[in-house]
Amino acid sequence: MSEKGILVVVSGFAGSGKGTLMKTLVNQYKNYALSISATTRNPRPGEVDGREYFFKTTEEFEAMIAQEEFIEYAQYVNHYYGTPREYVESQLSAGKDVILEIEMQGALQVKEKFPETLLLFVTPPSVEILYKRLTGRGTEDKETIALRMARAKEEAKIMEQYDYLIVNDKLEECVITMHAIIQGEHARAFRKKELINTIREGFVCFSEGE
Amino acid sequence: MSEKGILVVVSGFAGSGKGTLMKTLVNQYKNYALSISATTRNPRPGEVDGREYFFKTTEEFEAMIAQEEFIEYAQYVNHYYGTPREYVESQLSAGKDVILEIEMQGALQVKEKFPETLLLFVTPPSVEILYKRLTGRGTEDKETIALRMARAKEEAKIMEQYDYLIVNDKLEECVITMHAIIQGEHARAFRKKELINTIREGFVCFSEGE
Repeated sequence: MSEKGILVVVSGFAGSGKGTLMKTLVNQYKNYALSISATTRNPRPGEVDGREYFFKTTEEFEAMIAQEEFIEYAQYVNHYYGTPREYVESQLSAGKDVILEIEMQGALQVKEKFPETLLLFVTPPSVEILYKRLTGRGTEDKETIALRMARAKEEAKIMEQYDYLIVNDKLEECVITMHAIIQGEHARAFRKKELINTIREGFVCFSEGE
Repeated sequence: MSEKGILVVVSGFAGSGKGTLMKTLVNQYKNYALSISATTRNPRPGEVDGREYFFKTTEEFEAMIAQEEFIEYAQYVNHYYGTPREYVESQLSAGKDVILEIEMQGALQVKEKFPETLLLFVTPPSVEILYKRLTGRGTEDKETIALRMARAKEEAKIMEQYDYLIVNDKLEECVITMHAIIQGEHARAFRKKELINTIREGFVCFSEGE
C-alpha cells in the first residue's frame, strides 16, 4: 500500500530558528521534500534560482496566479511570494512529506483549503530568549527588531490554531521531535481511510467465505 | 517546566499482537508506565497479583466502585475488570506516559471522561492475517475463533473513532511508530497550554518593559 505524503506547513516567530530546523530535518532523514517558493523580488547576493526561490517577473507570477498554479500566494512590500502547486503535488503523490515554510496567515489558508495539512509552529522556550536571539544576530537595527517583536506578539495570539507547537531549545532534540510528529501523523485515523476500507472489506469477504 | 504524562489507551483486535507490542515499548523506552487492571476473576496458573492483575474479591471491587476508585470498569462473564485511578494519576503527575490496555467500549468511555486521552488502535495489515494469527496460536477452538472474528468485525465498524491506527506488521517498526506517536503527541497544541501562557505573558512583560 503506497501512501501519499503529508503536506507539512512550518511557521514560527522570526528568530525561532525554524529555517535551520527544517534544513537539518530534510538533510538528516529521507522521505522529506522541501518546497521552494516563487517570488518576484530580486535575488540577494548568493541566492540561486531554484534553490532559495524560483525568481519570476511580475508578469510570469500573475500568469501563474491566473492558471491557479499556486497552493497559496501573498503580496508583501510590493512583491509576490507563492507556493507552486505542481512540485508539492508530485512529491506528495510520490509518498514524500513536503515541508513548506510560510507565515501564519498563509498557513491557516492552506489548512482551510487542504484540511489534512499538518501545521507546525516553532517557538523559542520564552520571549526573553526570542528577543536575545533577534538582537544577538546583530544584523537588524532596533526598529526592525521592535517590528519583529510586535509581529510575534500578534502571532502568539493565534498560535494554538496550529496542530503542534515545537519548542526550539536544543536543535538536535527539536529535529527528532519534529520527525516523530510527522512520522506519527502518518498513523492518524483520518489518514488511514484506505486501511479502514481494506479491513472492513476483508471482514465482508471473510463472512461470505465461511 | 515539568510536564504531565499522557494517558494512552491501547485497544486492538484479538490477535493484533497489542500485548507484545505494549510490553516491548515499555521495556525499550523509559518514561512509560504500564497500568495494571484489577479483576475479580481467579488468577490463572503463573499469574501474579500486582503483575498481571490486582486480584480482588467481588466485595473489595464493589467497595472500590463505591469510592470512585476506578477510571473505568466493566463486567464480563460475571467478573469485574477495572483500572484503578490512583496509580494512573500518580504516574501521570510524575510525568510518565501511562499505557492502558482496554477494550473498545471502555476506551471510548475513558476518552469521553478525559478528552486528552490518546486512543491507539492496533490492527494486523489485513483480515486474512488476523485470521491466520488467531488460528496459528493453536490455543483456541473453532467456536472461540469465530466469536473473536465476529467481535473484530463489530470493532472495525468504529475503529476510526480512535486517534491513531497502528498496523502491526513488523514488531520492531511498530514499536518505533508507537513511540513516535506518543512522543509527538506531547507537542500537540492543546497539550501546550502552559507554554502558550508563558509566551503570551512574556510578550505582555516585554511590552511593559520597553
